[in-house]
Amino acid sequence: MQPDIKLAETLFDTLDRATRQGRGIVRDSFGDGEQAAHDIMRATAQTLRLEISVDAIGNLMMTLPGRDRRLPRIIIGSHLDSSPQSGNFDGAAGVVAGVCILSALKSAGKQLDCDVTVMAIRAEESSWFNVSYLGSGGAFGLLDPACLAITRSDNGRSLEATLLERGFDPSPIREGRALLDPSRIRAYLELHIEQGPTLVAQALPAAVVTGIRGCKRFRNARCIGQYAHSGAVNRPQRHDAVAATVALLHHLETLWQQYEQQGADLTITFGELYTDAAFHAPSKIAGETHFVIDIRSVSQEIMDAVAEEARRAAARIAATFRVSFKLGATSDSPPAVMDERLRAGFRAQLQTPFEMPSGAGHDAAVFAKMGIPTGMIFVRNENGSHNPDEAMSLDDFDTAARALLGLLLNFPLP
Amino acid sequence: MQPDIKLAETLFDTLDRATRQGRGIVRDSFGDGEQAAHDIMRATAQTLRLEISVDAIGNLMMTLPGRDRRLPRIIIGSHLDSSPQSGNFDGAAGVVAGVCILSALKSAGKQLDCDVTVMAIRAEESSWFNVSYLGSGGAFGLLDPACLAITRSDNGRSLEATLLERGFDPSPIREGRALLDPSRIRAYLELHIEQGPTLVAQALPAAVVTGIRGCKRFRNARCIGQYAHSGAVNRPQRHDAVAATVALLHHLETLWQQYEQQGADLTITFGELYTDAAFHAPSKIAGETHFVIDIRSVSQEIMDAVAEEARRAAARIAATFRVSFKLGATSDSPPAVMDERLRAGFRAQLQTPFEMPSGAGHDAAVFAKMGIPTGMIFVRNENGSHNPDEAMSLDDFDTAARALLGLLLNFPLP
Repeated sequence: MQPDIKLAETLFDTLDRATRQGRGIVRDSFGDGEQAAHDIMRATAQTLRLEISVDAIGNLMMTLPGRDRRLPRIIIGSHLDSSPQSGNFDGAAGVVAGVCILSALKSAGKQLDCDVTVMAIRAEESSWFNVSYLGSGGAFGLLDPACLAITRSDNGRSLEATLLERGFDPSPIREGRALLDPSRIRAYLELHIEQGPTLVAQALPAAVVTGIRGCKRFRNARCIGQYAHSGAVNRPQRHDAVAATVALLHHLETLWQQYEQQGADLTITFGELYTDAAFHAPSKIAGETHFVIDIRSVSQEIMDAVAEEARRAAARIAATFRVSFKLGATSDSPPAVMDERLRAGFRAQLQTPFEMPSGAGHDAAVFAKMGIPTGMIFVRNENGSHNPDEAMSLDDFDTAARALLGLLLNFPLP
Repeated sequence: MQPDIKLAETLFDTLDRATRQGRGIVRDSFGDGEQAAHDIMRATAQTLRLEISVDAIGNLMMTLPGRDRRLPRIIIGSHLDSSPQSGNFDGAAGVVAGVCILSALKSAGKQLDCDVTVMAIRAEESSWFNVSYLGSGGAFGLLDPACLAITRSDNGRSLEATLLERGFDPSPIREGRALLDPSRIRAYLELHIEQGPTLVAQALPAAVVTGIRGCKRFRNARCIGQYAHSGAVNRPQRHDAVAATVALLHHLETLWQQYEQQGADLTITFGELYTDAAFHAPSKIAGETHFVIDIRSVSQEIMDAVAEEARRAAARIAATFRVSFKLGATSDSPPAVMDERLRAGFRAQLQTPFEMPSGAGHDAAVFAKMGIPTGMIFVRNENGSHNPDEAMSLDDFDTAARALLGLLLNFPLP
């Protein structure tokens, strides 16, 4: 038995035509672009005669009933929204994989012991409402009710107003009420494009995900020194914000290399770093910098240790350079560990088993956090994600979707 | 004999009232603010019955004739323009010092062997036309004629149009024609506020300047990497522009410390450093940085060596970090050495002789470049310059002006 790759091809084409705006894909969370994708998947599910339901906040469930409907179900899920001017595959590939697997099972007249539900999850991206996992987090009653007041980055409409306009019900979010019962979910499986270059570098079509890196981030770190003339003030009298910031970031880069040599999982990134354009000048010592320290790992302990060392180093360097650092509080999203048996099951399905952590966050992290056995498989993808140049080949998708179908048919969990 | 400090006090007050706009002083080069200052100085020179002339591009010469008018003259000079929202003393202090010294000589009926000219120089600051030393450089025919097309930063008017509106003649600049003959200038002397904190730190009212640091600057340096997801790309696959830039700047900071330990005169400053706000994000590896490397020293050899090492280090680091650096060409202003005999003469006039280099550029550098024996004295000033908080005390000014008068009366040059 093989996934229905013809259907997958058609679905990718249809999604592309419906949601491409200029160069890139726009499937705005809870907006017209995401809704168009949901409509396409729902129509397909109707054609396949799957059971269809939509929860209060818009997550679409497409179910192939099992032999014993009292058993907890398996969910195959991913999201249908995209960041602005994105590619066609980030998120959608996982939903398409689920549907073309159910199509194959249906065609073969094959029924599993339990229900298998493909869940098209709402609003995973944070680009529109500045909160990740609105769909999966909302399904488990995990969202801070205050998020209903958050406004969409482009049109300024609140999440609450947006949900109501779309015909959904914000009250479960307001009341922290769960729409899914974790004890009724046997496992959660997600296929997703890799958002980095590892599989391209490894020349492999797919990888089993070991865990999803958490993120500990100093989002609004600053160094405060004093502006002065670059030629007129010698080192001992300087309060040079750039020199101090360079010293701190260099120290953290060196620290990362040390962790790396020990084989620890870690990334440290300073993706925003800037002097103040209203005050800086070629002949001035800079009096202020702004920067981000983004720390990621599958290990919470490592992230905590790096953040702690960042604070200690900032204090030392501030004294040396006569400046002050205001690193601020960290924003934290914890790492998620994938289920060992599901990992082994996926490995057994791949010709060249290869495992790697996921650096980016996924809905799978929410399911894992709820204690649900969770497994993920990555598909090779050129050119990263969140840009129009995403490039997943249908062959690589096929390899990963086959592994997902094989796992279902040889399910390793009780 | 003492400088006419009462006159100095009146002149500082009058200049302040005429050119303060809001918190700061505005004496725009070739604009109304600078002209107001020239009018005040000219009226004072008339009252003192000095000889007055204005050259083709607006430099004001106020001369006390000497006993032998065939002898080359001594010029006491500085500029009357200011950067926007500046203080009252940067530039003007040197012209006021000259005038209150000539007032003292006149009152005492004292005549030197040669003419002494106070030169109120035009347009030293680069804030308005983005070229330094328009007045002194123009007087020696040193300007690139193309500078006539440069437009004023605030009103967009060209230098040529501005000169014509003010009744001046751009043709000497266009033809590279000199208005002053260096062989007819015995010496150039300049009193200026210190633009750094050294004299405040040393608790001294004045210092003799050893030389004016040159500046070798990579004005538009860039590092080009590749934007990518911060969590999804490990170090070996990164093209991280910030990490590479930090490595380069850290290397140069370390190099500076080595020069410093050897007692070499040097500053290295990265006053502008930024990722591109249109593309950077907290969860992105930065694909590009922009920065300035500003190298200053009284030694051309040291500046050249540092720039050379910056290029070598950039090549090494680019290879390590899989990025490219585009440092671009340097813009160069050479250092100027002050005359040894004038330095000794100034030192002899100070109770606590103290010498230091000037980090900022001054008109004195242009005169020194022309081979004219040049001497400078700094006055202590709190809070740096080019801001409304400049704070020179009249007592410190008096100390430096007395030294200048004493030097004239005991002139060490033939």
